[in-house]
Amino acid sequence: MISSTSNSKVKRLAALVQKAKYRREDQAFIVEGVRMFQEAPPEWVKEVYISESFYNRYVKKSENKTDRNLKEFLKTFRYEVFSDEVFQKVSDTQTPQGILCVLSMPQYVLSACIDNWMNAMKNGEKAPLLVLLEDLQDPGNLGTILRAGEGAGVSGIIMTRQTADIFNPKVIRATMGSIYRVPFFIVDSLLDTIDLLKQNGIAVYAAHLDNSVDYDEPDYTQPAAFLIGNEGNGLRRETADSASKYIKIPMEGQVESLNAAAAATVLMYEAARQRRKSV
Amino acid sequence: MISSTSNSKVKRLAALVQKAKYRREDQAFIVEGVRMFQEAPPEWVKEVYISESFYNRYVKKSENKTDRNLKEFLKTFRYEVFSDEVFQKVSDTQTPQGILCVLSMPQYVLSACIDNWMNAMKNGEKAPLLVLLEDLQDPGNLGTILRAGEGAGVSGIIMTRQTADIFNPKVIRATMGSIYRVPFFIVDSLLDTIDLLKQNGIAVYAAHLDNSVDYDEPDYTQPAAFLIGNEGNGLRRETADSASKYIKIPMEGQVESLNAAAAATVLMYEAARQRRKSV
Repeated sequence: MISSTSNSKVKRLAALVQKAKYRREDQAFIVEGVRMFQEAPPEWVKEVYISESFYNRYVKKSENKTDRNLKEFLKTFRYEVFSDEVFQKVSDTQTPQGILCVLSMPQYVLSACIDNWMNAMKNGEKAPLLVLLEDLQDPGNLGTILRAGEGAGVSGIIMTRQTADIFNPKVIRATMGSIYRVPFFIVDSLLDTIDLLKQNGIAVYAAHLDNSVDYDEPDYTQPAAFLIGNEGNGLRRETADSASKYIKIPMEGQVESLNAAAAATVLMYEAARQRRKSV
Repeated sequence: MISSTSNSKVKRLAALVQKAKYRREDQAFIVEGVRMFQEAPPEWVKEVYISESFYNRYVKKSENKTDRNLKEFLKTFRYEVFSDEVFQKVSDTQTPQGILCVLSMPQYVLSACIDNWMNAMKNGEKAPLLVLLEDLQDPGNLGTILRAGEGAGVSGIIMTRQTADIFNPKVIRATMGSIYRVPFFIVDSLLDTIDLLKQNGIAVYAAHLDNSVDYDEPDYTQPAAFLIGNEGNGLRRETADSASKYIKIPMEGQVESLNAAAAATVLMYEAARQRRKSV
C-alpha cells in the first residue's frame, strides 16, 4: 500500500487530474468512481487505483451481491492500493468513492469516421449528425452536450482546440459516461473542418440572426452539423459565414440567446425528433 | 466613501451575498454588474453600491456615450461608494464590475396568477405553460431553466422550498436577467400545487419510464406544466403518481436521462414549437 503523498506515482496522478498539459504529454486522463470504472472500455484502462477503505469493503468483505460483482470485476485488472489520505490527495472529489483509473485518450480520425458514416447511410442507416463547438469555455456545458448528444443519437462532437479540455474531471463527470461512447474530435481549424463536412455532403447549420429560418424548418434527416459558439461571444464571423444555412431558435421575452448547452440540446433533439418521425 | 471592511453595512451585504438565511430574513437579495443593474425593475431596487474605480470611470470621467448614459441612469438612484478593497470583499465575483444592488424579493401569488393566465387564455392569449421543479440542487441548472424558460415563453416556474435558492448569486448570474421577467413561485407542498393546477385545467406532465408516450405527442397548445425531478434521484414516486400524464424523452445509446436543465429545455421548446405552429 502506498501511504506517502510524496510518492512519485501519487504526484503524477495528481498532476494528471489537475493539468491538461500533463494529460496531453501522457496521452492519458483520469476517471473516478465505480460507475466510470465499470463502464470504461477495457482497452482504454491503463492503471487502476483504489483506497484502503474501498479495498476493505469490496475486496476483503464484499457483503452483498453488488459488492461481490464489483470484486470479481476488479480482479480482471491489476490495481494498487492507496491509503485513504493519499487517495483523497489525488482525488478531484470531496468525498471520493475510492477508485480511480488512468485511461488512454481515444484517437478518433474524423475523415475515416465521415467515410464510415456516409457508407452506413448508403446502407440504410441514419445520416450523420454532428455538433461543432467553437471555443466553448464551460466544462459543465461541454459535458452536458456530450451526454445529451448521446441521448439524441449524434454521430460525434467536434471541438476547437480552444474549447475546454474534454479530459478535465468536471467535463468527465458531467458526461455521465457518454465520453466513452460519443466519438469526439479536437480540430486545429474549424474552417477546414466545415469545408470537409460540406465537401462530404453534410449541411452545416449556424445559429444566426440574419437571413435565418426557425430551427425546426430544415430537414435534419439528411446529414447535418450544428455550429455552437462560445458562451460569451457566440460564433466568430468567419465561422458563421462558412455555414451552409442559418437557423434561429425563436426567443420570447428579452432573451438574446440560450445557454450554449441548452441551445445545442434543443437543436440535437429537434434532429432526433425528425429522424424518429421519418422512420 | 466606505473603506473599512468591518463597517456594519459591508458585513450585512457580504452576509446577503453568501447566506440564504439572511436573504430570507431581509426579504432581499443582491445582484451584481452593469447589466443586472440596468435591467432591474426600478421598484425592486432598494440600495445601490459602486466601487471607487466605477465611480471614477463612470461618474467622474464618463468618456464615451455608453459611459455617459450609465452615469445619467445612475443619477436616478441614491448610491454609496466603497473603496475597491471593500467592494471586492462584498462581491461574489473574482473581477467585480464595481456595481451591486440590494433588491426586494418579488412576491408572486400563484392562485392569482393562475386566474390571470386562464382569463387571458379565454381572451385569446396563449395557454399557461409552467415548469415544476422538485428539489433541484444545482444553481446553474436552476438559472439555465429560468433563462431558457423566458426564451420558450413559459408563464412561470414553480419550485419546492428544497430547491437551490433562486436568490443565490450563481443562480442569478445564470439567469442572465430572466429572474426579473419570469414569475417564480416557491411552494411548500408540490402535491398541493399539482392538485391546484389540475383543478384549474392545467395538465401536469411527468417524465417517466412506464406507460409513457414520446414527449412530442401530447398537445401542449393546451394549458400544460412539466415536472422536473432532482438531479440525482429524479421525481419522488408520489409526485410522479400525481401527474396527469407520463411522457418520455427518447434516449439513444446508454443514456438514462438528460441533465435536468437539458430535459426542461427540450420540453419547454417542444411546447413553444407546437404553439408557434398552431398560430
